[in-house]
Amino acid sequence: MNKTFTNKKPFTRGYHREYTPPAEAQKKILPFKEKVTLHIPEIKNGIRIIPLGGVEGIGANMTAFETERDIFIVDAGFSFKDESAPGVDYILPNTKYLEERKHKIRAVLITHGHLDHIGALPYVMPGLGNPPLYTRLLTAVMIKKRQEEFPHLDALDIRVVEKNQTIEIGEMKVRFFSVTHTIPDAMGIIFETPYGNIVHTGDLKLEHEDGKASETEIKEYAIFKDMNVLCMLSDSTNTERPGFSIPEHRVIDNIGNIIRNTKGRIILGAFSSQLERLVKVIEIAATLGKKVVVEGRSMKGHIEIVEHLGMLKVPRGTLITGDEMGNHPADRIVVLATGAQGDEFGALMRAGNKTHRTLKIVKGDTIVLSSSIIPGNERSVQKLKDNLSKQGAKIIHYQVSDVHSSGHANGDEMRWIHDQINPRFFIPIHGYHYMLTAHGNIALARGLAKENVIVPDNGMIIDLIEGGTKAYIQPERAPSAKVMVDGSSMSDVQDMVIKDRRMLSEDGMFVFVVVVDSQTGTLKKSPDIISRGFVYLKESQDLLRTARTIIKKCVEDITTNQPLHTIDGDQLKHAVAETMSRFLMQKTAKHPVVIPVILAV
Amino acid sequence: MNKTFTNKKPFTRGYHREYTPPAEAQKKILPFKEKVTLHIPEIKNGIRIIPLGGVEGIGANMTAFETERDIFIVDAGFSFKDESAPGVDYILPNTKYLEERKHKIRAVLITHGHLDHIGALPYVMPGLGNPPLYTRLLTAVMIKKRQEEFPHLDALDIRVVEKNQTIEIGEMKVRFFSVTHTIPDAMGIIFETPYGNIVHTGDLKLEHEDGKASETEIKEYAIFKDMNVLCMLSDSTNTERPGFSIPEHRVIDNIGNIIRNTKGRIILGAFSSQLERLVKVIEIAATLGKKVVVEGRSMKGHIEIVEHLGMLKVPRGTLITGDEMGNHPADRIVVLATGAQGDEFGALMRAGNKTHRTLKIVKGDTIVLSSSIIPGNERSVQKLKDNLSKQGAKIIHYQVSDVHSSGHANGDEMRWIHDQINPRFFIPIHGYHYMLTAHGNIALARGLAKENVIVPDNGMIIDLIEGGTKAYIQPERAPSAKVMVDGSSMSDVQDMVIKDRRMLSEDGMFVFVVVVDSQTGTLKKSPDIISRGFVYLKESQDLLRTARTIIKKCVEDITTNQPLHTIDGDQLKHAVAETMSRFLMQKTAKHPVVIPVILAV
Repeated sequence: MNKTFTNKKPFTRGYHREYTPPAEAQKKILPFKEKVTLHIPEIKNGIRIIPLGGVEGIGANMTAFETERDIFIVDAGFSFKDESAPGVDYILPNTKYLEERKHKIRAVLITHGHLDHIGALPYVMPGLGNPPLYTRLLTAVMIKKRQEEFPHLDALDIRVVEKNQTIEIGEMKVRFFSVTHTIPDAMGIIFETPYGNIVHTGDLKLEHEDGKASETEIKEYAIFKDMNVLCMLSDSTNTERPGFSIPEHRVIDNIGNIIRNTKGRIILGAFSSQLERLVKVIEIAATLGKKVVVEGRSMKGHIEIVEHLGMLKVPRGTLITGDEMGNHPADRIVVLATGAQGDEFGALMRAGNKTHRTLKIVKGDTIVLSSSIIPGNERSVQKLKDNLSKQGAKIIHYQVSDVHSSGHANGDEMRWIHDQINPRFFIPIHGYHYMLTAHGNIALARGLAKENVIVPDNGMIIDLIEGGTKAYIQPERAPSAKVMVDGSSMSDVQDMVIKDRRMLSEDGMFVFVVVVDSQTGTLKKSPDIISRGFVYLKESQDLLRTARTIIKKCVEDITTNQPLHTIDGDQLKHAVAETMSRFLMQKTAKHPVVIPVILAV
Repeated sequence: MNKTFTNKKPFTRGYHREYTPPAEAQKKILPFKEKVTLHIPEIKNGIRIIPLGGVEGIGANMTAFETERDIFIVDAGFSFKDESAPGVDYILPNTKYLEERKHKIRAVLITHGHLDHIGALPYVMPGLGNPPLYTRLLTAVMIKKRQEEFPHLDALDIRVVEKNQTIEIGEMKVRFFSVTHTIPDAMGIIFETPYGNIVHTGDLKLEHEDGKASETEIKEYAIFKDMNVLCMLSDSTNTERPGFSIPEHRVIDNIGNIIRNTKGRIILGAFSSQLERLVKVIEIAATLGKKVVVEGRSMKGHIEIVEHLGMLKVPRGTLITGDEMGNHPADRIVVLATGAQGDEFGALMRAGNKTHRTLKIVKGDTIVLSSSIIPGNERSVQKLKDNLSKQGAKIIHYQVSDVHSSGHANGDEMRWIHDQINPRFFIPIHGYHYMLTAHGNIALARGLAKENVIVPDNGMIIDLIEGGTKAYIQPERAPSAKVMVDGSSMSDVQDMVIKDRRMLSEDGMFVFVVVVDSQTGTLKKSPDIISRGFVYLKESQDLLRTARTIIKKCVEDITTNQPLHTIDGDQLKHAVAETMSRFLMQKTAKHPVVIPVILAV
C-alpha cells in the first residue's frame, strides 16, 4: 500500500532517536551516522561520477556527475519496501553529498517516467534547492501529475527536452538520445566533457528480430559512430541472461492474436508502467472493434496522460467505464487491469476476491497476466491465480506463453549496445552487485582493461582524471546509508525502529505494570499485564497467575529490603524484565519484547 | 530458523484465546472454530478420500483413506512459515477428523523422507494414538533420527517395507512401488480395495532421455498393466510446465564435468533434501580422487545416514572435515554446503558473511548453486550471490547452466505416468489450486469424464461409492483450519495473534500509563509513554510533551467531572486511545498499536 502525502505537513527530516529507548537498547544506541564531515577533496580537472543509488539492489536510481563548477544529477527514483524493513514505505538514495554542494547543482535529468527513476523527486528536490529538471514530454507530465499529490511542495521547474537535442547547462553541453524501454519517451543522456563524452543510457533494451537490431535502433545508435566516448554507464538488470530478450513486438503480436481469437471477455493484467504495451493493446482492441475498460488508479492515470498528449490514437468511444461494460457482449470487451502482482488493492486482486465493484470474473473470461513476477510476490500471484481460476477464468501467463517481455536488455543485446557506444571506461549501474559484475564482464570481454571497468557501490566516488586516461576511486565514500520514508518521516537512522518491528512481528510484546507503595515497598495491587501478538494460552489463568506471582516476588524482593529512594529504577526494571523473559521463553518457547512499567506512589 | 523442541515440555494444545484481549479485539473475538460436531455420515460400502493438507499450497501433505472399518493415512508433512504468518514456525495439516476416529486408524504410510511429508509426525502422532508407521528403509531412519529431537514423545512403531512388497493391514492389502524423486527410497502406495485399486504416487518425476522413459521406469510401471485402477492421486507441483523436466542424470553429468574441468576448489550449494544428487556428487568426486567436505547440520546428518546404510560407496578417507581442508590443495577439494537459499544460518550464507569458522571463500573458488530458488527467497539468494562474488568466487547457477532439476514431473512426463496407471478417477494433490487444475486438465485430456476428475480443497470429503462408479462430494468438510506451530504451542486459532504481529511489524506500539488520584480524579504525575518500532522523532520532546498534554486533558476531562466509581474504565480507555491514535496518525502518518493503561490509586 503506498501512502501519499496529500494534505499532510512537510516531512520532518533529520537524524532522530527514539524518545524512550529501553535499557538494553540504550547500551547499543547507534552513533548518529555520517555526522562527521568527510574529507573528500573536491574534483578539479576531471569528472567525478558518484552512483548514489541503484547499484546495490533494484530501484532508487540516482547518479551524480560533477565537474569543478557544476553538478548534474541523473534520475531520482525510490525502491519499494521489502520484508527486511517492515512498515517502511520507500527507500531513497542518500543525497547528503549533494545537499552539501547544493550551490553547484545545475540540473536534475530524468531518463524516463518509472518510479524507480522519478519516485524520490518529491522527497529530495527541496533539499537539493529545487534545481531545474530536464526530461522528455511524457516523463515531464507524469512528474507534474505526481507532484500534485504533494501540495505543500514548491512547484518544480520542469524543462522539456527532445531526443537528438543538444542544450547547454552551465558550461556543459548535454545531448539526448532515444532508447527502447517499456514506456514512451525513454532516453539516454550524453555529457560532452573536454575529456570525451559520458553516456548514461538509462534503462533500455532493443527492438530486434532474432538478435538483429531493427533499422530504427541502428539509426538511433548511429550518433555514436566516431564519437569519443570517455565513459558509459548502463542498466545491468538482465545482462546475466544470455542472448537477446523477447522483442516487444512479438509480445504485442501474441496478445493481439489472443484478443483476436478468444471467445469471451479478455482481461489483461499488467503493470501501469508498461505504458507502451498498454497503448498498443488498446489500439489493437480498437482495430478489432472492441471496447476497452481500464481498471486501477495508476493505470487510469497513465492512460489519461497518453490520451491527453495524443500518444494514444483510437476512435472516440473506444474507452468505456466499468459501469458501461454490461452494455456490450462479453467478446467485445477488453479489460486492462492493475494487480497482476497479487497486490492487495490492485483491480485484478479485488476481482479475484470478489470485492471489485464492476469487475466480476465469470466463466468464459480469459485472463492474460502480461507481467513477470517481482521477486517476493510469488505467493500472492499464486493466490491470485487460485482465486481467478476458482471462478472459472482461463489464465494465460508469461511462463506458458510470450505475453510479457522485460524492458531490460539481455547479455548479447547489451553487448551490441556496448559495441555501438564503444566507451573507454565502463560503469555498470542498476542492479545488485552480482548483476553489475556480470555486466562488467561484457565490457571486459570487449577488451576493456580491468582498471577501466568499475563495479560501484552506492556512494563510491569515481574520479576520471589525467585528461580522462585514469579512473581514481576516492578512499572516502559519499554518505550512502539508506534513507527510509516511514509515514511522514524521512531518515537514515531507522535501524533500531526496524529491528524492534522485526522482533515484534516474530514474538509480539508483553508489558506489565507494577504499582509500588512508596511507604512499604510492597505492591499496591496485582501487576497488570498487556500482551499483543505473543501467544494464545490454553491455561491463560495459570500462566497469568504464575507471571504475576513472579513479578510481585521479584519486585518486592528488592523494594521491601531497602528504602525506595536508594533503589536504581533502571536496574530494578532490568532485573524483573530479565526474569520475566526467561520465564516466558521457558513456558512458551517465544521471546516477546518484554517491557516493565514500575510506578511508585 | 527452525526451533526444535528438545528438552521442552509437551506442547500445550487446544483452542486458546489471548488472555487480555484489548477492547476493540474483544468485539470481534473469533468463535472457536469447528467446535461444533459436524454431521458427516460415516462411509459404508465405499472408499472415502480426504486430502487434509497440501492441496491449497505447497507442503503439509497428508491424505486420509477410509473404509467402513479402517483409516489409512498417507504422509504427515509440514510447510514452512511464510510472511503471511510472522513468527509461526510451521503449518500442519488439520487432523481433527482423524482424532475423532482414532480407533479406526490402522497405519500411517510415508512415501519419502522430505519434511513436507514427514515434518508433522512429531506433532500429530500422539493425537492419532501413535498408530504403526510404514515406510522404506531410508525414510524410516530419517524419521527415527528426527524423533530424537523430541525426547518427551513416545517412540514410534516404525515398520520397514520394500518396493513390490504387498502387506495386509487390517482388511486392506497394501502394495508399494518405487518412484523416482530426489531422495532414495521414494515410493508410491497401492490400496487394493474391492472396487479397484487406489494409487497414491507421492512426489515423483521420470528418468528419461529426450522424453523417452528409461528402461527402469518402464519396468517399474509395468505392474500397472491390466491393473484395475479405481483412482489415482498424484503430485501436481510442476504439471503446468510443458514437456519433460531436465532428467537428473544430465544434472549429474554437468556437475561431474564442472568438478572434472574446474581449476581450484568447488563448492556445491544444495538442499540437504537432494540426497540422491549429493550421494552421486560425492561418488564422482571420489572417482576423481578428490576429498569431500560436508558443511551444514542437516546435510551432515543426511550424509551420515546414507553412509551408515551403505547407500554411499566411496573409499575410506574421501569425506574429510572442514578443519582438514587445509591439508589438501584447493583443486582436490569439493565442498557440499547448505544455504543455497540464502538462509541465514546455512553454511554458504555464513561463508558469504565471513562468519563461517572453516569455510572461507577465496579467489579461484567456483560455487555451483545446485538448487532452484524457493519463492520468497529471491532477495536473500541475490544477497548471497553478491557476498560470494565480492569475495572473488565464480558462481554457476541453474539459470545459466543445467546444474539443478526439480524432483517433480512436468506435464507431458506426468501424462506418461497417467497413461501407465490409467485410472478411472483422478485426484490431483500437492500444490496450489491452480496447479491442481492444470494437473486435472491432463486427466481430462486423456478422456476422463469431468465428474471423475476431482480438484480438491483441504478437508474435502470424496466418497467413491456405488461399486466405485461414482464420486460423491460430501457437503460438509472435515475440519481444515490451518494448525500453526508457534513456539511450543500448536493451535488453529492463531489468527488474531498473527494479525497483531502484522500490525506491530508495520507501525510498532505506543503504550501510555496514567495514574489517576482516586480522590480528586486528577493525574498524580505526567503520563509515562513506552514505544517500540514506531518512529524516531526529531523533536521527540515536542511530540512527547504534546502527547502527554493530550492524554492528561482527555483523562481528566472525564475523571474530574464525575465520581470515579461511576466511570466505565473500558470506555475511558477507549476514548483516550482513540484520541491518541488520531493524534499520532496526524503527526507521523503511522498507525501504531496504542495501548492505554489507566490506574486509579
